[in-house]
Amino acid sequence: MPNIKLVVEYDGSGFHGWQKQGELRTVQTELGRVLSLVLRSSIYPLHAAGRTDAGVHARGQVVTFKVSEVPDLWRLAQSVSHLLKGELAVLSAEVVDDSFHPGKSATHKQYTYSILNRPSPAVLDARRVWHVHRRLDIPLMQKCAREVIGEHDFSTFRDSECCARSPIKTIYESELIQDGDILRYRVIGSGFLKQMVRNIVGTLVDIGRGTITVRSLAEILPLKDRRRAGVTAPPHGLSLDWVSYDPIK
Amino acid sequence: MPNIKLVVEYDGSGFHGWQKQGELRTVQTELGRVLSLVLRSSIYPLHAAGRTDAGVHARGQVVTFKVSEVPDLWRLAQSVSHLLKGELAVLSAEVVDDSFHPGKSATHKQYTYSILNRPSPAVLDARRVWHVHRRLDIPLMQKCAREVIGEHDFSTFRDSECCARSPIKTIYESELIQDGDILRYRVIGSGFLKQMVRNIVGTLVDIGRGTITVRSLAEILPLKDRRRAGVTAPPHGLSLDWVSYDPIK
Repeated sequence: MPNIKLVVEYDGSGFHGWQKQGELRTVQTELGRVLSLVLRSSIYPLHAAGRTDAGVHARGQVVTFKVSEVPDLWRLAQSVSHLLKGELAVLSAEVVDDSFHPGKSATHKQYTYSILNRPSPAVLDARRVWHVHRRLDIPLMQKCAREVIGEHDFSTFRDSECCARSPIKTIYESELIQDGDILRYRVIGSGFLKQMVRNIVGTLVDIGRGTITVRSLAEILPLKDRRRAGVTAPPHGLSLDWVSYDPIK
Repeated sequence: MPNIKLVVEYDGSGFHGWQKQGELRTVQTELGRVLSLVLRSSIYPLHAAGRTDAGVHARGQVVTFKVSEVPDLWRLAQSVSHLLKGELAVLSAEVVDDSFHPGKSATHKQYTYSILNRPSPAVLDARRVWHVHRRLDIPLMQKCAREVIGEHDFSTFRDSECCARSPIKTIYESELIQDGDILRYRVIGSGFLKQMVRNIVGTLVDIGRGTITVRSLAEILPLKDRRRAGVTAPPHGLSLDWVSYDPIK
């Protein structure tokens, strides 16, 4: 059966995350429903490169499914984007090798987390940023952001419900960029544990506003203890930007 | 009476523009109502640096009003932002010289217009970008964008309802920046005629998609004829970024 790969953008606000969860409205169930409707056929398991949490956005999530015959891919993309208008759009659709799996075949991914740091609340970016009104020590946060680069055991930033086999991941890039009152944390890694990016960002913010005694990520990473890290940043500031299947350069 | 200056951010989606218009919900009427409520006092004419059209956003609109005594400016900013939550936020508040007028005292302003150029519809940026699905000749548009720099009679890009005394304006910067599938047109000028930025952007897009025979802005600018320009770009892609009162460098 042909294996179809889609790259999709979605607004996580109206979904309880990627993964099917009973009767809850998730990206997996909604996209699966719409795909069956457009293709007038059952589709086989819908896999994704990253199981985004409730409220997390995606600019370039990669998904695959199998269907009995190759559909008109252009029409498929148009129809799905139309039926999920404003919430999800299909950016590209192609037939891929049977062995391709969006998660297992991925070599690295990028996430971006956006923080608005000013006293006044967010307006234009309200659904895409975490509003932090306290003054932050940005140079210190920038130094800390770089400390997670490399291969590490990320248990310190792992959610208790995470079911990944190994807590060891490699981070290739990790930087905090200041753009006016917006701070963007951009991270590229081989893979990510459940809530790992949000826990790193929450800890960076706690360090920046001085609400924890920790002054460095390098100091708490070897402790492998979630209790030593900071808060979990809210989901709506996070976006899965892209997934790559190319060898790491 | 003290003259109070506010810098405000707003989402233009729910407003019929800045200017009071009968019973319509405008930024001027809503902000005026909320200011009177918070100050428990009448306020005197609310002036703005730029009369944004219906649907146009502002990241740094400057407004002034007069009130009988100086209020607690921090509390004023917090209360107004809270009462207009999600629609408008006060970024700063200060007492300024009596002669200061947000429009007349301004020396230059920046607007940004965002275009999403891809076949799939917008999702995450839907309320902030003009979605143009046709392929655009971006290098040609970039060349044209630079052609409006300098002092010119902008009648070609002036809305028929514009009531400015002079159509002559000076443009200091005008560039189209590509960032993935987003195109940002950024323009800094001494002032702008009604719908001038949207008419320039609409013409750039018509040139880029080849729907008009015009191939340059320099060619139509001297004609002073609105009919020679392209469409008016929709309002929701436009934002007034900032207003400056400093001498031009």
